[in-house]
Amino acid sequence: MAPTPIISIIEPFGGSVRSHNASLPHVYFDDRAVTRGDAVVETLLLRAGTVVNIERHVDRFVASAAQLGLPEVHAHQWVAATVEAAGEWERRHEGVEARCTWTLSRGRESTGLATAWLVVTAVGQRPREVKVMSTTRGYRVEDTPPAWLPAGAKTINYAATLAAVRYAQQQGFDDVLFCDTPRGRVLEGSTSSVIVVKEGRKLRTPVRGGDIVPSTTQAALFDAAQQAGWRCKEKRLSYNDLLEADSVWLLSSTRLAVRIRRLDDHKLPAGRLDDEFRQLVETTLG
Amino acid sequence: MAPTPIISIIEPFGGSVRSHNASLPHVYFDDRAVTRGDAVVETLLLRAGTVVNIERHVDRFVASAAQLGLPEVHAHQWVAATVEAAGEWERRHEGVEARCTWTLSRGRESTGLATAWLVVTAVGQRPREVKVMSTTRGYRVEDTPPAWLPAGAKTINYAATLAAVRYAQQQGFDDVLFCDTPRGRVLEGSTSSVIVVKEGRKLRTPVRGGDIVPSTTQAALFDAAQQAGWRCKEKRLSYNDLLEADSVWLLSSTRLAVRIRRLDDHKLPAGRLDDEFRQLVETTLG
Repeated sequence: MAPTPIISIIEPFGGSVRSHNASLPHVYFDDRAVTRGDAVVETLLLRAGTVVNIERHVDRFVASAAQLGLPEVHAHQWVAATVEAAGEWERRHEGVEARCTWTLSRGRESTGLATAWLVVTAVGQRPREVKVMSTTRGYRVEDTPPAWLPAGAKTINYAATLAAVRYAQQQGFDDVLFCDTPRGRVLEGSTSSVIVVKEGRKLRTPVRGGDIVPSTTQAALFDAAQQAGWRCKEKRLSYNDLLEADSVWLLSSTRLAVRIRRLDDHKLPAGRLDDEFRQLVETTLG
Repeated sequence: MAPTPIISIIEPFGGSVRSHNASLPHVYFDDRAVTRGDAVVETLLLRAGTVVNIERHVDRFVASAAQLGLPEVHAHQWVAATVEAAGEWERRHEGVEARCTWTLSRGRESTGLATAWLVVTAVGQRPREVKVMSTTRGYRVEDTPPAWLPAGAKTINYAATLAAVRYAQQQGFDDVLFCDTPRGRVLEGSTSSVIVVKEGRKLRTPVRGGDIVPSTTQAALFDAAQQAGWRCKEKRLSYNDLLEADSVWLLSSTRLAVRIRRLDDHKLPAGRLDDEFRQLVETTLG
């Protein structure tokens, strides 16, 4: 049986934090998260009682909330609640890695108050390799989008993305890779960023912005890799760049680095730098 | 004080319906609706104890669920639960119009079972006229979107749309009108379809499909209008067509027909057919 999740309800204006029993529901019928998907999220990795890469998650959470005009995020409150939950999780389930999900919703229509909570659950077995189907998103963000578009905000609006993943799975793949046109410019995975490893210890990732959510994990990795002597760059990446790379990876906060071993009908063989790259990821995000 | 909502929890595989107290939450932390926006909705109008236009809502709900690969909708169950709730509402709050919202979510990750419920709440005062800001969506659906794209499904993924509405309200407008390019081809409102009234008792609405959710209310209106001698057509509509119309309306299931009296910097004067059109809407959707 999976370990019991830890849930903390967070008063959105810097008030108290209370523990909530995971066997009971806590979201009301008129919460904007559930009526309109009007909420932002972050997912953080908890390892051995510590919270990985928390500053970057805080920064993106603050930015997401601001883009949607949600109440200001009280960072110290989220950090304290997360550190507390991480410690509690480790006491209860020593050595079991976990994910901590933050949700900030516009809240209940009847009260006009935001709702906010965090949930800690176990991270299951991680895959080391995946088969990936490339696809467009079905839409393109405009070159000059309107001022109101919350393009970089990490919301809970994943219905279309999940439809893509289900379709890929029906075709025998594990995940999707989004490109701007069929097999064109590379964007990102369904809930991950793309990292290309090239000969000469080079790391590449698609240039952020437009319709690519900035990745906290890629940013942390590039910082550490740079210090370890890798040469790291955001670059425009084409589908063919992936086929010619030493190896290609999907990177996310809780699944970490997963190598793409098949991309559509192309087998992507193991790279010469795989072990070193995996070691780098473990060290950085450990 | 607003009347207490009625909530019915619906077993998603054709099982029982139970009444739920609106003072208690019912959505769990791991419900896909609240973690991933992975749910479909319908909003229906209840008038004098009857459910307006229910067949078309059922059809669209079934289609939305199918597009997202959700469990099959047991239509008779939703209809029975809605009729029951409508009667109960009328007994409690005679003459108070209400909206009934259906939600079908992929459900809890821990159980793998869909969750489903309906909520009946009072409809407030309806505006008769609105000021509307036109905008693009910030993205364009591809001309040949991938097979998996659930383009016509009515999901709860409204975060971007609501950002547009908030921006419009900050600029002194009430709502938005989406166009494919700035002041280009007309698409729809934020939660409504566009109806153009032209001289000679003609009704026009943008051709459905692509990035326009098919409207149940417009379909019902056109059926009735046709029988009453209006000439109704889906047509490609440009921004300029709106400026030259007798009148322009936003149509939705619970707000019904609201006349656009200002579109960006253009005043749209009352039309000669306004009273007749309002009467038609009331008769059709009454």
